Amino acid sequence: GLVHVKNPHLDLMEEDVLYHLALGTKTHNLPAMFGDIKFVCVGGSPDRMRAFAQLMQKELGLAGDGQELADICAGTDRYAMYRTGPVLSISHGMGIPSISIMLHELIKLLHHARCRDVTIIRMGTSGGLGVEAGSVVITEVAVDSSFRPQFEQVVLDDVVVRSTELDKDLAEELLACSKQIADFPTLMGHTMCTYDFYEGQGRLDGALCSFSSEKKLQYLRRAYEAGVRNIEMESTAFAALCGLCGLRGES
Amino acid sequence: GLVHVKNPHLDLMEEDVLYHLALGTKTHNLPAMFGDIKFVCVGGSPDRMRAFAQLMQKELGLAGDGQELADICAGTDRYAMYRTGPVLSISHGMGIPSISIMLHELIKLLHHARCRDVTIIRMGTSGGLGVEAGSVVITEVAVDSSFRPQFEQVVLDDVVVRSTELDKDLAEELLACSKQIADFPTLMGHTMCTYDFYEGQGRLDGALCSFSSEKKLQYLRRAYEAGVRNIEMESTAFAALCGLCGLRGES
Repeated sequence: GLVHVKNPHLDLMEEDVLYHLALGTKTHNLPAMFGDIKFVCVGGSPDRMRAFAQLMQKELGLAGDGQELADICAGTDRYAMYRTGPVLSISHGMGIPSISIMLHELIKLLHHARCRDVTIIRMGTSGGLGVEAGSVVITEVAVDSSFRPQFEQVVLDDVVVRSTELDKDLAEELLACSKQIADFPTLMGHTMCTYDFYEGQGRLDGALCSFSSEKKLQYLRRAYEAGVRNIEMESTAFAALCGLCGLRGES
Repeated sequence: GLVHVKNPHLDLMEEDVLYHLALGTKTHNLPAMFGDIKFVCVGGSPDRMRAFAQLMQKELGLAGDGQELADICAGTDRYAMYRTGPVLSISHGMGIPSISIMLHELIKLLHHARCRDVTIIRMGTSGGLGVEAGSVVITEVAVDSSFRPQFEQVVLDDVVVRSTELDKDLAEELLACSKQIADFPTLMGHTMCTYDFYEGQGRLDGALCSFSSEKKLQYLRRAYEAGVRNIEMESTAFAALCGLCGLRGES
């Protein structure tokens, strides 16, 4: 149940500085700060991840109204991090490169802190595809812009193809939970992850747009037929990294 | 000298909402707010772009100490934007997807505001390659992780290859300016842009690392031989978008 890093070089390092989190193995007692973390929730916006931590504080019946929650990464403005009880809430900015930096450092943090049996859930705004506005889509599998369940990671100048499978049991658990909440239509579906918000997602209102409304609709129709129910910008990298490092992940 | 959008759909829209900047054509008088902007400076961190705006305020001899500068995008936490005199200072987060969203909306903003002869400069932290620590690298051309001067943009599910040429005259001007400042070694070189900070840039301290120190050095040596002098995560998308929209850009 330990979080595992896959990097033989780390053992040889005297100190590990998590630059973009403003934390480190020499400057912080990571096991004391984070050793009992069981859930990590990530999302793009720092303000929303603070609001989520406050909500968790209330839902878990913990003392305090959440106003006192301090940003653990206050030493940097790259990401924001809050904890309440066993739940860590972290922002990751927008896009694959931004979430990747955060996840590399988060995974090392959980490893150094010797956390066990950690569940990680990404919550984010996404564009729905053929679903009622306001729906929650639980990701069955994360796919790229060609609807393939894979993530192409450039390692030096090689391209390595990684699986984007998520934890199926966790997805079923989340779907079961959703049935107790009447307010949000919830469904399972494929989540498509793109590198671009405008040209990559068929939007007609970017600074550049070279395709017609018909071509956009054809593309989105093909995506729907391939099982895609929402579109966002982080899920393939999230699924690939969590999968490789033994984090039980859902999005 | 006008900033041009390349999107025939925009003319047909009654309102243009710049979602991630919390600005819009119906809610804000963009020509009045931004019509006289001549310089746009962009960088990753919101705190640094605020500090830069304050420095500009002082350097331009404008009234006030810069403490009063308010975030024009206060309605969102995605990006931060400050203006002082003819200079706009905006953060773009980390990575190509994040800077792309900002640039699409910034370019539309400058277009709606009918700005003329705008110069845009990206300033950012980067990893130096065979240069003295603390050096400033002025980008001669932005290249991808295979050292090619191009940016591959996914449009729907097609890959479109775009030029990453920057404004050569502007690069020369910046180099000339640097000669008046003794504190920073400054040079021209190719800037390599990657999608990943750890595995993509040959770092040995990520959560995953499958290559040896030797293989890393071989790759960086090849990059150096191809003319690369620094590595970062936004320059190819920046160069491609600015070039297509008539913004005089440097990085």
